[in-house]
Amino acid sequence: MSRFFTNKHSTLTPYTPGEQPRDKKYIKLNTNESPFPPSPCAIQAASEAAKNLQLYPDPTYKALHEEIAAYHGLTPEEVLVTNGSDEILNFAFMAFCDKEHPAAFPNITYGFYSVFATLNHVPYTEIPLKPDFTVEPLDYKSTADTLFLANPNAPTGLALTVSEIEEIIKSNPNRVVVVDEAYIDFGGETVAPLVRKYDNLLVTRTFSKSRSMAGARLGYGIGCKALISDLNTVKYSTNPYNVNSMSAAAGLGVMKDEAYTEKNCRAIIEAREYAKAELKALGFEMTDSLGNFLFVRHPKIKGAKIYKALRKRGILVRHFNSILISEYNRITVGTMAEMQALTDALADIVKE
Amino acid sequence: MSRFFTNKHSTLTPYTPGEQPRDKKYIKLNTNESPFPPSPCAIQAASEAAKNLQLYPDPTYKALHEEIAAYHGLTPEEVLVTNGSDEILNFAFMAFCDKEHPAAFPNITYGFYSVFATLNHVPYTEIPLKPDFTVEPLDYKSTADTLFLANPNAPTGLALTVSEIEEIIKSNPNRVVVVDEAYIDFGGETVAPLVRKYDNLLVTRTFSKSRSMAGARLGYGIGCKALISDLNTVKYSTNPYNVNSMSAAAGLGVMKDEAYTEKNCRAIIEAREYAKAELKALGFEMTDSLGNFLFVRHPKIKGAKIYKALRKRGILVRHFNSILISEYNRITVGTMAEMQALTDALADIVKE
Repeated sequence: MSRFFTNKHSTLTPYTPGEQPRDKKYIKLNTNESPFPPSPCAIQAASEAAKNLQLYPDPTYKALHEEIAAYHGLTPEEVLVTNGSDEILNFAFMAFCDKEHPAAFPNITYGFYSVFATLNHVPYTEIPLKPDFTVEPLDYKSTADTLFLANPNAPTGLALTVSEIEEIIKSNPNRVVVVDEAYIDFGGETVAPLVRKYDNLLVTRTFSKSRSMAGARLGYGIGCKALISDLNTVKYSTNPYNVNSMSAAAGLGVMKDEAYTEKNCRAIIEAREYAKAELKALGFEMTDSLGNFLFVRHPKIKGAKIYKALRKRGILVRHFNSILISEYNRITVGTMAEMQALTDALADIVKE
Repeated sequence: MSRFFTNKHSTLTPYTPGEQPRDKKYIKLNTNESPFPPSPCAIQAASEAAKNLQLYPDPTYKALHEEIAAYHGLTPEEVLVTNGSDEILNFAFMAFCDKEHPAAFPNITYGFYSVFATLNHVPYTEIPLKPDFTVEPLDYKSTADTLFLANPNAPTGLALTVSEIEEIIKSNPNRVVVVDEAYIDFGGETVAPLVRKYDNLLVTRTFSKSRSMAGARLGYGIGCKALISDLNTVKYSTNPYNVNSMSAAAGLGVMKDEAYTEKNCRAIIEAREYAKAELKALGFEMTDSLGNFLFVRHPKIKGAKIYKALRKRGILVRHFNSILISEYNRITVGTMAEMQALTDALADIVKE
């Protein structure tokens, strides 16, 4: 820390992204990336856009906003694209929370919510999950808080139903409810169709998972025009050209190739269910994840030990230090071949 | 504004980027873009990176940090790349300013500084330029403020010398001095070599201007390790993967093709000096800009009128509403052919 660093942020503990070791080639199941390359339409569109990089992007991202709006049956004024969905989540904390408007989210969820809250000096409550890691909807009814709900939740993969979330939205009419649907395309039920019904609902999405574009940093939010207008005020006060032209073009490209995304999602769901069955047969316990990841533990082997044993065998998974989930590992669902390699390695580890 | 928008930001007036009209084809001299396409090395590197978008970028941006560090004779720990230089400027406001550590900058400068200050609730002083639009170095000596100095300044194009800036840095040992060198490659003197000498100096740069990559959103800062470490704390609490993989690859590509950048800078300087002489011959007055833009007025024709007359003729320039500079237009230096078209149009307008 320099002697110039503001006291305001001196207690800030930054988010720790998944490790990216370079010592050898790993089967990388630690950051919930897609095992499939981006759509050829995305690659081509990005390569075309690269030729005109001397020009700033259109800061209104008209074409991409129109495409996303059409996908959800909305107008472009109800959409905002951002530099990854992390950016729209941070914008939501900036726009809808402050010292008098605290935030709340589950005590086990995407680790960045508490970082954004701290960064923005927003008081927050971490609401405990139930012992089976499910969210208790009643805990989120009639609160005084801006709510952040990952659905499916991370790293558990457990999802609420649309009607459960709708009850939460209805019971908090004077608070924004942010539903983070980063993992929605792998089996969860989206609340996107409720955007026109509730002016306090913001749904966030990412192109990083189902659309194979984690490297592009492209996310978005949909909500009523007034919410999106507030988020635009924050965006134009932060970085008007927040998304680069290549990622904007790639986003447009992949959205015109829905069949590709759907095929990949089906393959990932199939590999997930295969891995669930295989791991259960090996004695592992797990949540019924609807994400592109598994959340597993073995009743007899420590989580950290499994993490290390897999790493030794060239397979990277994500182990969280939090005491609440230290017995678990989050394992990204890759290709069927990668899931077979995982199963083989775990069979080996269990035998030891 | 929604009923949920925080009071904290209710007085925020966002930055207004240059217009991007789509009603017809314009000669676009309004956002200081390069008239030259990006380096073929940048295009190729970006296109290659597009093929692996399913993976997150390396959040440490190791290869790019090493290349930029080598360019400046520094180590990677003294460099931080960001989503455009707007992001590193915002990070600097977040890291080094607060209510007790106000900011100061010229009253005529990059319009985003005051927006960042307001966004971050940082009190700020706008120090008047001299009547000839030059910065008076004495005004920045021994202040109590974190200083933001665009050098060359925008939209005047006027630059301080290295020794003038060094005196400012020396006289403010307990305040960070941010020198925004967005336009440095068109003739100004860089203070980058002072980074090792002063722990309170942060130099920011962009790939948007001389490197023809405005669409990529790539900027960076260089400073002592402790300053960069603070900025990393902010980055990892905001958006760890802040730069997408394609822009990171393109940045690496263009840095390996310095001859291309240098050739383009020479052409822009030549076109600038040509345009200066032609416009002077038409009776225009201007600063001796060292940027890739001119800052001009005509003693007999209002700035807004010139802006509109050029627009009617298919040439877009930037007119600022600020009363201090409303008689002026900022005109991006394009190709020699574009400068000839500009001169022809202005000759016409002057005759009317």
